[in-house]
Amino acid sequence: MPDTQPRADGNRVLADLHALRAFGAYKTGVHKPTFSEPHKLSLEWLVQKLPEANLSATIDGIGNVFGTSTKPGPKLLTGSHLESQNYAGWLDGPLGVVYALEAARVLNTDPSLNGAVEVAAWCDEEGHFGHFLGSRSYVGQVTEADIDAARDRTSGRTMRDALADMGLAGRPRITVEPGRHVGYLEAHIEQGDTLESGGLAIGVVTSIVGIWQYQINFTGEQNHAGTTRMAVRKDAGLALAKFCVAIDERFPSACGPRTVWTTGRIALDPGAPSIIPGGAEMLFQIRDDDPAVIARLEQLLRTMAEEASANGPCTVTVEKLRTGAPAMMNSGFQDAIEAASRALAGGRSLRMPSGAGHDAQMLATVMPAGMLFVPSIGGISHHWTENTADADIVTGAEVFVDACRRILGG
Amino acid sequence: MPDTQPRADGNRVLADLHALRAFGAYKTGVHKPTFSEPHKLSLEWLVQKLPEANLSATIDGIGNVFGTSTKPGPKLLTGSHLESQNYAGWLDGPLGVVYALEAARVLNTDPSLNGAVEVAAWCDEEGHFGHFLGSRSYVGQVTEADIDAARDRTSGRTMRDALADMGLAGRPRITVEPGRHVGYLEAHIEQGDTLESGGLAIGVVTSIVGIWQYQINFTGEQNHAGTTRMAVRKDAGLALAKFCVAIDERFPSACGPRTVWTTGRIALDPGAPSIIPGGAEMLFQIRDDDPAVIARLEQLLRTMAEEASANGPCTVTVEKLRTGAPAMMNSGFQDAIEAASRALAGGRSLRMPSGAGHDAQMLATVMPAGMLFVPSIGGISHHWTENTADADIVTGAEVFVDACRRILGG
Repeated sequence: MPDTQPRADGNRVLADLHALRAFGAYKTGVHKPTFSEPHKLSLEWLVQKLPEANLSATIDGIGNVFGTSTKPGPKLLTGSHLESQNYAGWLDGPLGVVYALEAARVLNTDPSLNGAVEVAAWCDEEGHFGHFLGSRSYVGQVTEADIDAARDRTSGRTMRDALADMGLAGRPRITVEPGRHVGYLEAHIEQGDTLESGGLAIGVVTSIVGIWQYQINFTGEQNHAGTTRMAVRKDAGLALAKFCVAIDERFPSACGPRTVWTTGRIALDPGAPSIIPGGAEMLFQIRDDDPAVIARLEQLLRTMAEEASANGPCTVTVEKLRTGAPAMMNSGFQDAIEAASRALAGGRSLRMPSGAGHDAQMLATVMPAGMLFVPSIGGISHHWTENTADADIVTGAEVFVDACRRILGG
Repeated sequence: MPDTQPRADGNRVLADLHALRAFGAYKTGVHKPTFSEPHKLSLEWLVQKLPEANLSATIDGIGNVFGTSTKPGPKLLTGSHLESQNYAGWLDGPLGVVYALEAARVLNTDPSLNGAVEVAAWCDEEGHFGHFLGSRSYVGQVTEADIDAARDRTSGRTMRDALADMGLAGRPRITVEPGRHVGYLEAHIEQGDTLESGGLAIGVVTSIVGIWQYQINFTGEQNHAGTTRMAVRKDAGLALAKFCVAIDERFPSACGPRTVWTTGRIALDPGAPSIIPGGAEMLFQIRDDDPAVIARLEQLLRTMAEEASANGPCTVTVEKLRTGAPAMMNSGFQDAIEAASRALAGGRSLRMPSGAGHDAQMLATVMPAGMLFVPSIGGISHHWTENTADADIVTGAEVFVDACRRILGG
């Protein structure tokens, strides 16, 4: 494509990312939980920036920020999120929002292009209060009752209180306007090492894997840690440990090539040094882009729980908390990203599934969606050491802006 | 002994226990954490009751309640504690305090007896803010800096704030007055099933086992639960689970006949559903009355940690938090309890070690000490279902009062 077309301004992109990094800075990362002060400052920062792209800014009743355009022609929705996991990385979320802002700045001010890029920052993608609450609200999957029930998983603060503190109580929530957008495009760090280890610059996402989440409960008998003989104990914590080890031993023979599973949280009840735990629970997650594999593993999990209960001395139950169908990315959007990569990244791209969940999987339920990845150094993410080389950030921005232009028919 | 001597009043003892049970009632037990409102009401209740035994009451700067006598002759210190574990039993602590109060009521008003019983309610035996803070303070093992550092293990409230809320800030702490007491006698529920299963009424405690406490830390690599392949994970939570199972497999061949070990608390860092834990820690406790057994098990624990670290992918370290030497009970006091049991309980007593820690182990460091157990139904304790038959409570009170009389030379 001709070089005369305006491109992303790499220095402007890096400057914006560092401006967002300053809110809630923690070591080389950020601590920016949903509805925290640093998160609020980040949303306000974006609201100030959107007019540079001829977009008018709104924050809706669930904390989503929208930049909407009056430019005629087709409109492409773009964005990501601004909050972070606790004490986590500076690019997970903000990279996609700044790319979206940059694409809007470059393309909305280009009279040669018919159409515009609109920007969204989806609230709580990181799931402090639920999961994908902002993008799920936009696609119509969040009720007022859901919001009434939502609490911060760390502090226990209710979402209603948090929204009130943000000055958003009572504001309407903005939901999808059928036909307004030709689709949704999101950029994100890979959060894995596939691109880096292959010397690649761009990941063209083919699908986003589903996440199945379970709570596994262990019931034994609470008793005194000094006076209860080992032989008569019903230690729910020990039962949990044995179950974790059994999963580690039996899942590999039943899983698929890309399946991953994680026990992210463990709690013993009552959790006191001198009391044998009478109860224990673990939060367990399985991810795969093949629902058949998930079904097989869930069955194995339930079988293992029945076996453990039968063998005793504790009973084990499995409760499904969440089912996530995999989301397929639009093939035309994949082609546009690949073409942009050939034009501006020497074609150093790879088609790959996303093991992580993203707002794009929610948007994909109501419009064509696509995702672009940039490399993560060492594949590290959800940790303050998460990072991406400046050169890769700039290349990613150039490819993203060009992919937006192509999707808009430029 | 002649039946003319005044005995414990069983109905008065039961009435007092039910009065204390009403403060912080939870199901059939109590929720009476140290310095909670129900705990405060319990201390004030005791202060009101002590004059019935010709004792003058004081609450000192760490929340210990003392009832002191001006009666001439030898003085025997007696007592236990009034706070409970969270949502736990109604007798663990209050039984010993009410027995002490009853002994003082019966013996201090008996002109035929030379000497008196003094009463103490030791604060925080259950370790909400530390361990045995009240009795340790009395024997001179707690510094002001210890109190500055102490926090409620559940709420995180500082002990200084709690003492201020109790109106105890700045009060002097009362410490042992050498030569004042001929010794210390404490009654407690067994918290095990040895007496009940043997059809016995009284446990004559020979020693209180030591408690050794360790924090075992696991260090892996925090990463994203969706994008990090199983093969490259360093999951600290899984390493912890494997370690718990290894303890369960290897300790039985190295332990003694009465050794017990417990993992009471487990924490994963960061403890989020979509993050592979980069860190994990467990609170691990070993109890035995033979230090040689403990030494052997601690060595095994350290060897297992080295092996686990060597095998990877996580590193395991063992940190000793607390060492508790076993406390021997005075043989003369054991004889006095046994004689009282022959006189009033048909000799249905057994000499046994205590697997649980008690304030008596702290008092034993500065004066002769003894302990008497009554049966626990089903051996259950540190749970709201903890209970003892009324008949056993009454028999225990009669034996306790008579043992006090014998120790005072009556």
